[in-house]
Amino acid sequence: MDFEQKYHAYKALVDRYLADAIQASQPRSLYQPLKYVLAGGGKRIRPILVLLACEAVGGKTGDALHAGAGIEILHNFTLVHDDIMDHAHSRRGRATVHTKWDKNVAILVGDELLALAYRMLLKTSSPRIQDIASVFTEGVVEVCEGQAYDKEFEKKSVTVDDYLVMIGKKTGKMVSVATEIGALIGNGSDAEVAALREYGALAGQAFQIQDDVLDLTGDEKKLGKKIGGDVQEGKKTFLYLDAYRRAKGGDRALLKEIFGNGKISRRMVDEVRRIYAETGALERARARVGQDIAEANQKLARLKDTQARAMLYWFSDMLLHRTY
Amino acid sequence: MDFEQKYHAYKALVDRYLADAIQASQPRSLYQPLKYVLAGGGKRIRPILVLLACEAVGGKTGDALHAGAGIEILHNFTLVHDDIMDHAHSRRGRATVHTKWDKNVAILVGDELLALAYRMLLKTSSPRIQDIASVFTEGVVEVCEGQAYDKEFEKKSVTVDDYLVMIGKKTGKMVSVATEIGALIGNGSDAEVAALREYGALAGQAFQIQDDVLDLTGDEKKLGKKIGGDVQEGKKTFLYLDAYRRAKGGDRALLKEIFGNGKISRRMVDEVRRIYAETGALERARARVGQDIAEANQKLARLKDTQARAMLYWFSDMLLHRTY
Repeated sequence: MDFEQKYHAYKALVDRYLADAIQASQPRSLYQPLKYVLAGGGKRIRPILVLLACEAVGGKTGDALHAGAGIEILHNFTLVHDDIMDHAHSRRGRATVHTKWDKNVAILVGDELLALAYRMLLKTSSPRIQDIASVFTEGVVEVCEGQAYDKEFEKKSVTVDDYLVMIGKKTGKMVSVATEIGALIGNGSDAEVAALREYGALAGQAFQIQDDVLDLTGDEKKLGKKIGGDVQEGKKTFLYLDAYRRAKGGDRALLKEIFGNGKISRRMVDEVRRIYAETGALERARARVGQDIAEANQKLARLKDTQARAMLYWFSDMLLHRTY
Repeated sequence: MDFEQKYHAYKALVDRYLADAIQASQPRSLYQPLKYVLAGGGKRIRPILVLLACEAVGGKTGDALHAGAGIEILHNFTLVHDDIMDHAHSRRGRATVHTKWDKNVAILVGDELLALAYRMLLKTSSPRIQDIASVFTEGVVEVCEGQAYDKEFEKKSVTVDDYLVMIGKKTGKMVSVATEIGALIGNGSDAEVAALREYGALAGQAFQIQDDVLDLTGDEKKLGKKIGGDVQEGKKTFLYLDAYRRAKGGDRALLKEIFGNGKISRRMVDEVRRIYAETGALERARARVGQDIAEANQKLARLKDTQARAMLYWFSDMLLHRTY
């Protein structure tokens, strides 16, 4: 079985777990939208990283499945609540919960997802369960902090460094929680746990910057969302911040004008893409992704040479070259 | 020290813990409203029950303080999110988070509170930590289910029994989680843990029905909220459901008319109070509170005769006779 096949096998494992995880159906106003969210798919990157990190330190995949499902549900909790705050109407090509139902339902579904995430995590059998639950919890804290920064940034002037702190909390932390928890369940040494945590943080950062790039260069259908969504929402991404600092005269004014605006045309998105290209922002973002992935891979070098480690290298490569 | 003094000493302990618990101050858009919530006071009933339940099985108060703080923060999480969903503008005489800031802030503050609740809980040192965290988690799940039922009930016809299921989840469960967790931290026997869990569920139910009664008969200043709020919001309380079933002719129509209505005058609240009195609903609600408390106290009879148990009896009595 090659890595691509193994990835799909693990993804199917997670999908099946999540499909069977929730037996309750009442109250219907809660469980119907909740199951809708969990059936929404996604790349299942975080749970697969939990499984691989566990294997990479010599643990059994099966031992990490509860925690993997837990972290995927946690991720979905953040999506449901962030979508309310960001007024996002679609996600993975489907209507968001607060669009299909209403805001109250979406608040409650998010809350319940967070509780269910803990329920799954706490099924884990490990002498290190208290540490595992604490790492998970600090992940939730940082995700909230990251989202708060993200919303603050919409209203004030920020730098690329501010942005990196924000995505470190909002995206990087959750990926590092995945790899750290996997390593703890596999009962890794302190050095192994640290290596996998750092791998996750770097891979997560690369993943987010790549996401920013794909917002302008990706395939609308494959991504399941509109191209230029970040521009539309005025999200201060790596690209925007880097380009704005370097753009001159008319382009700088144009960038500012477009980003302040609520309604954005396809032509405006094209203009932004042109400015990102001409200022070199696009190139620098891609270079940064490459650099983060290279650094992440260096962390893996501290682990034993196993199949799981080889697959983590493959995984890094997939993140680097993904187009959706 | 009498029980009243001990209650205030424990309350002060919890207040101090909560005041010192959160060191972070950035992002400010998150931590400023979060600290505002935790400084809002409240009766601290749930954390004090954690401490007393722990003592009642022979544990040390200090061992249960983290968990007590955790459950109080968890309670505050539910208030912040419920206040959004219920469009409540004040709580304990102060503006609610979504009123003073906005809905997005309130969603995020609630999420972070839930994470911080787990952070505090997970500081508990106990060989039974996994059970403790699971009991806590099932509490969160049921609180969400209870809130979903509560919102569903606003739009459909329900019975007193439906109502009791709803408050069992929304209020009773959290109180039973408090007493059960306290008993687990104190390393109580299975029989002791069960007795305290059942005590909490019954006391919690009594507390909620008493709350419904106080909504119409309490002191506006002491309660820190407007009299008749439940009537205003069309909340189907024990009183409403019992009265509606028994009310005749004009009163029944009047009750229905007032409850469908968004805007409610003081005179309408007086009318509702009159109907509740004349149908006997008020009396039956009070009888139910008395009966639940008596049953709760019977559960305590299974515990050893300690100071903590004596204080739990005192606590029951306080719930029964409280006026705010």
